[in-house]
Amino acid sequence: MERLRRLVVERLMRYYRFLSDSNAKRQGPTVTSAEIAAALDIDPTQVRKDLGSIGIVGMGRVGFETCEVCRSIRAVLGFDQGVDAILIGSGRLGSALLTYQGFTRYGLEFVAAFDNDKKLIGRKVGNCVVKPMNGLRPFVEKNDVQLAILTTPVSVSQKLADRVVETGIKAIWNFSPTRLKVPEGVLVRDEHISVGFSEIAYHLALLSES
Amino acid sequence: MERLRRLVVERLMRYYRFLSDSNAKRQGPTVTSAEIAAALDIDPTQVRKDLGSIGIVGMGRVGFETCEVCRSIRAVLGFDQGVDAILIGSGRLGSALLTYQGFTRYGLEFVAAFDNDKKLIGRKVGNCVVKPMNGLRPFVEKNDVQLAILTTPVSVSQKLADRVVETGIKAIWNFSPTRLKVPEGVLVRDEHISVGFSEIAYHLALLSES
Repeated sequence: MERLRRLVVERLMRYYRFLSDSNAKRQGPTVTSAEIAAALDIDPTQVRKDLGSIGIVGMGRVGFETCEVCRSIRAVLGFDQGVDAILIGSGRLGSALLTYQGFTRYGLEFVAAFDNDKKLIGRKVGNCVVKPMNGLRPFVEKNDVQLAILTTPVSVSQKLADRVVETGIKAIWNFSPTRLKVPEGVLVRDEHISVGFSEIAYHLALLSES
Repeated sequence: MERLRRLVVERLMRYYRFLSDSNAKRQGPTVTSAEIAAALDIDPTQVRKDLGSIGIVGMGRVGFETCEVCRSIRAVLGFDQGVDAILIGSGRLGSALLTYQGFTRYGLEFVAAFDNDKKLIGRKVGNCVVKPMNGLRPFVEKNDVQLAILTTPVSVSQKLADRVVETGIKAIWNFSPTRLKVPEGVLVRDEHISVGFSEIAYHLALLSES
């Protein structure tokens, strides 16, 4: 299979979330591209194209078998093999992620949390006890850590990202609102929570005009 | 100006964030669509089209005036008029948002925080003292609140969204990982933090194959 583009991967994630959400009550075991499209505000042709790109072809008007679609997306996105992650920065946002209900169904598991703040070190948050930053390298060397999640203040994010890179970790999920410089071969995913606010701000700006 | 589509709004937000980020060191006062495109992994034609849709036209090879682009995006997305928000659910994620560094430059301000947990009521988080939920309606009636940010456990999110809707608030930013049902005319923006994880999981799945 060809390497999927980032936006295709994100849409597949949105389809998966929609189809596996027990609150989204649907009729029977199948779903049409039109239903997915309407629920997620995406073009139906795009939905069929995306699913086609991972080998799922619908059955005319009947659409797709929901379970099959979910299974295929899980397989392609690697949810079943699991990802062991560490958290760097165990303040409010970090603690929120450590205890977030939504991650487990995607195979994401926190195996350790680190911070430099003495008030936080030793605290249990979720399943992790917060460790001092100087324990980072030994921990990563002993354990097969694939991902570091960064929730640090902007002022120290780059320095800590450098330390993460030195350990050999190949992926950083960056929640601090700044861009990180990393060597080629390391994936950085920037999570700027504010992006979602743009839709709201624009909507409210239009309302106030009318 | 025609109403912009959600994805255009989100891309404008990403351009704004990139151009106004002091860490993104660029040469001089102008920027080309190619530079923006490369930094954000978006097609240059798309960048020009998006900026054109809000009336910004580049100057051939010189590109765009960075300040002008930022000003225009701020104006269109309504960042300058400000949005007063309340938080519903002041646990870990809620507290993280109340103290998040990244919101102020988009005009988002928290004016109150609510929770039903007696351990949280009365606590000061960021600039807000956590109030009991039964204070919600009187507070909204007295103050011009435009947005409710929901960071509640899935089990109570719909019930609390219903109470928010009753107050007349027209926008909900939903951080709880479930879909909400609201009447027409109320905007719900679902913020599923997990979407970003799909890119990471897929990247790691490809690495483990090779």
